[in-house]
Amino acid sequence: MDKILRIDVGAEGAPRATVVPVGEYAGLGGRALTSAIVSKEVPPLCHPLGAENKLVIAPGLLSGTASAMSGRISVGGKSPLTGGIKEANSGGQPSQVLARLGYSAIVLEGKPNSSDLYKIFINKDGVKISVDNSLKMLPNYDLIAKMKAEYGDKVSCISIGPVGEMKMASATVAFTDMEQRPTRHAGRGGLGAVMGSKNIKVIVLDDTGMPMRPPKDPEKFKDANKRFVDGLKNHPVTGQGLPAYGTNVLTNILNEVGGYPTYNFKQGRFDGASKISGETQAETEKTRGANPTHGCHRGCVIQCSGTYNDKDGHFLTKQPEYETVWAHGGNCGISDLDKIAMMDFLDDTYGIDTIEMGATIAVAMEAGLAKFGDADAAIQMIHEVGKGTHLGRILGSGAAVTGKAFGIERVPVVKGQAMPAYDPRAVQGIGVTYATSPMGADHTAGYAVTANVLKVGGDVNALKPEGQIELSRNLQIATAAIDSTGMCLFIAFAVLDQPDTFQALLDMLNAFYGLNLTGDGVTELGKKVLSMERDFNARAGFTPQHDRLPDYFKTERFAPHNVTFGVKDEDLDKVFNW
Amino acid sequence: MDKILRIDVGAEGAPRATVVPVGEYAGLGGRALTSAIVSKEVPPLCHPLGAENKLVIAPGLLSGTASAMSGRISVGGKSPLTGGIKEANSGGQPSQVLARLGYSAIVLEGKPNSSDLYKIFINKDGVKISVDNSLKMLPNYDLIAKMKAEYGDKVSCISIGPVGEMKMASATVAFTDMEQRPTRHAGRGGLGAVMGSKNIKVIVLDDTGMPMRPPKDPEKFKDANKRFVDGLKNHPVTGQGLPAYGTNVLTNILNEVGGYPTYNFKQGRFDGASKISGETQAETEKTRGANPTHGCHRGCVIQCSGTYNDKDGHFLTKQPEYETVWAHGGNCGISDLDKIAMMDFLDDTYGIDTIEMGATIAVAMEAGLAKFGDADAAIQMIHEVGKGTHLGRILGSGAAVTGKAFGIERVPVVKGQAMPAYDPRAVQGIGVTYATSPMGADHTAGYAVTANVLKVGGDVNALKPEGQIELSRNLQIATAAIDSTGMCLFIAFAVLDQPDTFQALLDMLNAFYGLNLTGDGVTELGKKVLSMERDFNARAGFTPQHDRLPDYFKTERFAPHNVTFGVKDEDLDKVFNW
Repeated sequence: MDKILRIDVGAEGAPRATVVPVGEYAGLGGRALTSAIVSKEVPPLCHPLGAENKLVIAPGLLSGTASAMSGRISVGGKSPLTGGIKEANSGGQPSQVLARLGYSAIVLEGKPNSSDLYKIFINKDGVKISVDNSLKMLPNYDLIAKMKAEYGDKVSCISIGPVGEMKMASATVAFTDMEQRPTRHAGRGGLGAVMGSKNIKVIVLDDTGMPMRPPKDPEKFKDANKRFVDGLKNHPVTGQGLPAYGTNVLTNILNEVGGYPTYNFKQGRFDGASKISGETQAETEKTRGANPTHGCHRGCVIQCSGTYNDKDGHFLTKQPEYETVWAHGGNCGISDLDKIAMMDFLDDTYGIDTIEMGATIAVAMEAGLAKFGDADAAIQMIHEVGKGTHLGRILGSGAAVTGKAFGIERVPVVKGQAMPAYDPRAVQGIGVTYATSPMGADHTAGYAVTANVLKVGGDVNALKPEGQIELSRNLQIATAAIDSTGMCLFIAFAVLDQPDTFQALLDMLNAFYGLNLTGDGVTELGKKVLSMERDFNARAGFTPQHDRLPDYFKTERFAPHNVTFGVKDEDLDKVFNW
Repeated sequence: MDKILRIDVGAEGAPRATVVPVGEYAGLGGRALTSAIVSKEVPPLCHPLGAENKLVIAPGLLSGTASAMSGRISVGGKSPLTGGIKEANSGGQPSQVLARLGYSAIVLEGKPNSSDLYKIFINKDGVKISVDNSLKMLPNYDLIAKMKAEYGDKVSCISIGPVGEMKMASATVAFTDMEQRPTRHAGRGGLGAVMGSKNIKVIVLDDTGMPMRPPKDPEKFKDANKRFVDGLKNHPVTGQGLPAYGTNVLTNILNEVGGYPTYNFKQGRFDGASKISGETQAETEKTRGANPTHGCHRGCVIQCSGTYNDKDGHFLTKQPEYETVWAHGGNCGISDLDKIAMMDFLDDTYGIDTIEMGATIAVAMEAGLAKFGDADAAIQMIHEVGKGTHLGRILGSGAAVTGKAFGIERVPVVKGQAMPAYDPRAVQGIGVTYATSPMGADHTAGYAVTANVLKVGGDVNALKPEGQIELSRNLQIATAAIDSTGMCLFIAFAVLDQPDTFQALLDMLNAFYGLNLTGDGVTELGKKVLSMERDFNARAGFTPQHDRLPDYFKTERFAPHNVTFGVKDEDLDKVFNW
């Protein structure tokens, strides 16, 4: 992990790969590294699809090691959706593989000279870039089948579907899982369109012959990792809830507290919730011979992932995540798990962010394009995006553009990005994160659902503004740091509640790198990352006025608690005062 | 003109009209009044189509008087296209009529409680608001025919076409001309969508029985008006060029200097220019029995307007303006005047901004939706907008959204609004105006083509950055003041070159109101208006970063002069330092 692979797609003749030392970016991983490179090298006012934007793909500091949970990967660039800096985070195999191959990051830069589409193959012997126009407009599943046939069943892939090629602002960058399925996605912010603008369809990674990355102090590392894993197993969320039901365990919980945005954020409870809950989903999976407890990458011990089979017992898609089930489910008034799973598959194979897509369908339903609850119409809308029809071009550009095109006022976005599965009125801490995160509305940027709803890492009344600023601030700082380690964010449940588990994480980092990192050091790293990101956004023209929820969240009361978003503007402006 | 008509469209039961004294807004007219009301009463972060936005329609200070050229009207609100404050300006009859009826402004406010569509009738006896759902989705020409049948051939109308009803961001507010045709439009910034969001289809005005507004000093006023008219007649632009050929006299001029944006701003000269020039247009009109020299409102002495007949000698549309001929002509590679005239008619009747529409078609052509030069495809695109098909929803949302939907980088917009008919690289002064005007890219906001190209009001080299900041600053100040008087902006040619004509204008204002306004007072008014507008935009989240041209104007060289936009960012930030 001491080198960066830079690929200039605009080089004369054909894209050219150059491997350079990590240099000034040494010591940074994941989000810290993507945001550092973007912040330093990308002009904030450039066009997101132009020559000056870069796509940065970076494993975390502990990726490629024996550490549990270290398989997350960060993708960064200027977002076509928000116009600001973006880090989108994914699971899957490529993080571990890229790290073992020794790369801190891959940077795609420049602008192609032709319409040729390229694939990139990276193994221990180096980098090979080749034209392959036969891949044009292939959905991710078909593409990966082709790569498997060509490169064998040991490789892992980073790819875009047709929606990325068409440069739509909801396009994802897909990452294959342990079964070589393109099920994990850096979804938010349309970074797939940036990859599409570089004419790179797929990066195939083969770490055959590359050893696991060795720690400086193997004994201490092993011991810390053991304590870390024990901590995860002992916490009820990471040891029981997530393994048994996956992230969709949240449907019943959010619905119960009245914070489940239903019918395009109209109300906080959904009649059909029990039909699409994690409990129902896991039961359905088991009955059909699928697997509800499964990891998305080597070294995962939480196992919140899974597989979902159709009625005949054939693989349909990976176990849809809570936010996906919500986006295509309750938010659209849909309570048919099979239809939702089909939408999850379509999003994955076309390469569309499930959250943006579901939020957009709900806005389209509010505009009268279909009735809430019409699952077949929703499925058809995703096909329109995947095929790039005119309607698809609208929907694939996200909820904000869809609202603009159809003249709709109730569009739940911040900085142009759709809100996820937690209403900011009934979970006010997450509202603070939506409003202020440099990423746009993003639950993962500071998951205040912890103290607001789950009562993990504290207890802050979800319906009131008091305490939410501090909560969101601390979580945004911690998240920015965790996103830099390559660790799955779900470790936060145990790390927030159990000081020993947090210490084990620090010990692991220290043993691996020979450092003396303390809790304060982690906080400093998180602040540094956020400051870089906010600085980029300021230079891109973002102001405190952009750190706001849409007006209607402050005036439209939300059932069942009859509540509006109560955090004052001047308090929102204090989130980053540290 | 001592009262304001406020219509609360969200009042219980049905929209309610209230007439209030002009109060704190006394002494303001036109743009000064619309911007003062919007700046004071509209929350800058509100949704442009929501309850809190207002549509303000205001005649100028001299409208409704015997003054020549005083028939312009301002429409203001928060723009659905730019998200900033907007004043769009139009000719036509309603300014004079509304002023004679004694209204300083009409303000539409609130949010409708139903989907009923309303018409408003105003005469000397008061205001009548009635539901008329038979008007739904009527194009402007059909609507006005219906209003004529209902209210007689003396009324004038302010209306929206179907595109305004569909709340698209390119929708205009239409104003009838002296022949009761809906040919004059407050086009820029999508204010027709704001009128549509208030469910007001048409405002019918009848000034029967209302006298001309009397000056305080009739003799002085009459004398000043005479000197003013003489000045206009004596200047070559207002006395000869504009009357003979209309605004389209500019095609040959801009093409000759290499500043005519062709093929979506790819080059500065168009092969087909002579086929669509003002000279050719006037000749065609004369041959077909139409009239190339005609005023758009009572009291016009420049007569730059006209009518355009089809091959069989039947009225097709008003004489298309230069910017319209450019937008649908050279910018799309189209050189067929009849097809361009048809597009002008379609834009007028559907209620679409011709500049935004033409710029959008060119972006769509760059995206491959049609070939440059394909006039039938361009016409079809306008029909798509008028009918609100999915493609129409994209195109009707303007060039910026169209670029985003189709993943196109070369989109010539500032603050989301399309650039008009002057390339900012070959006419760098207009580039400064595009970049910095609070209105978004707008030639009328500070028409530096004067000193850059026409050598009126000074001589500043169009291809170099030197002197452009001062030029644009002075013109933006003067324009903001002129737009407040109700005067047609074309008086500026004579006023800038002839101190006597400027003095005559001051004398006219002073004689009418009993004031002692000097040139400095006019400058102060202009600065005051711009400051209000910029303050609104700052509160809406606009920053210096928004006062920039798209990146490619700084890097892509423009033929024939092989020039890029050379004004530095830090100089752009000095435009409003006075």
